Amino acid sequence: MEKTVKMRGGVLVDGFWCWLFCRIIIIVATVEAATTAFQTCPAEVPTIRRLSDIHQDNYGRPGLAHMTIAGAMDDGLKEVEVWLQTFAPGIGTPIHRHTCEEIFLSFRGIGTLYLASESSEGKVPGNPNKFPIFRNSTFTIPVNAVHQLRNDYFQEDLQVLVIISRPPIKVFVYEDWSTPHSDAKLQYPYYWDATKNERLVCL
Amino acid sequence: MEKTVKMRGGVLVDGFWCWLFCRIIIIVATVEAATTAFQTCPAEVPTIRRLSDIHQDNYGRPGLAHMTIAGAMDDGLKEVEVWLQTFAPGIGTPIHRHTCEEIFLSFRGIGTLYLASESSEGKVPGNPNKFPIFRNSTFTIPVNAVHQLRNDYFQEDLQVLVIISRPPIKVFVYEDWSTPHSDAKLQYPYYWDATKNERLVCL
Repeated sequence: MEKTVKMRGGVLVDGFWCWLFCRIIIIVATVEAATTAFQTCPAEVPTIRRLSDIHQDNYGRPGLAHMTIAGAMDDGLKEVEVWLQTFAPGIGTPIHRHTCEEIFLSFRGIGTLYLASESSEGKVPGNPNKFPIFRNSTFTIPVNAVHQLRNDYFQEDLQVLVIISRPPIKVFVYEDWSTPHSDAKLQYPYYWDATKNERLVCL
Repeated sequence: MEKTVKMRGGVLVDGFWCWLFCRIIIIVATVEAATTAFQTCPAEVPTIRRLSDIHQDNYGRPGLAHMTIAGAMDDGLKEVEVWLQTFAPGIGTPIHRHTCEEIFLSFRGIGTLYLASESSEGKVPGNPNKFPIFRNSTFTIPVNAVHQLRNDYFQEDLQVLVIISRPPIKVFVYEDWSTPHSDAKLQYPYYWDATKNERLVCL
């Protein structure tokens, strides 16, 4: 009998603890749902940098000055990267293509955008179409289009801000406009991504 | 006997055509693999735009001048978008958060970046930390961090270039810094994405 009572008591106690446990689970779940429906990221301290303090280099390409303003290597960004590039007269990018989106803003000088004339069936880029680039202009590069930006004028530097998606960039480089697409050389990591730059923190 | 020869001949002929067919398939497949391992996109004609010709508006927010330089609505970009924004003295962004990456470049004026001080367990943004923004500076906003950029100075406009990923932007707006995250209001499409702007083509 005592055993039965104990058993009943046991059942009651178990029922209470089960009820309490379930209530706690429900309360916790409700509070969680209400307060963390949006899970904030840690509020990291952002670094405010002076552009003039960011590392600039030619990365072995005479006539180029490249600065990664923000991006994958130093900032851990995964979706966007911004460069400031300056091309001396006669200097330009390689002939190349990439699968990422790219936006240019031209701040200084004049130049030429060369863009492959091929159709989608082309085996080689073919003779490029030319587009004049001028100060305070902007343009986007079609994804995977073979292109080259050059400072073809001999008056002053060409300076552009370049925005790309999905950094660090993977570039297929062509020797010339008749290089078959299948012979384009993958260059990865690209010049400035090959080494991590220690940039000055200026806050 | 004749029938047998014919059959043998048939087998021989079938064998030849089968061999030829297989060779053609192999050759075609090899050529395809070699030449279309990279499938080029159509070389669309890029639009070179003057910044001064791009539509600028306050979109119902007095003291703001916003220009989408390139992005989802007018350019069909899916991965990056660039804005030029000018804030009159005393004017700023709403208190807000978003899941995309964001890079700022400040070209003119001085301002303040307010960034939520919360930990990841916070239910509200809490009193923000303040960071001074100055001319020719750059900074990134941590993904999902609640923030606000303001021109708190009364001398001149604050002008910034804003780069975001995954446009068009989805913004959660807070009434103040004590608004629970769960009460932040989704604003989508955002001001300038609500209508497609017809921009001038300047090539």
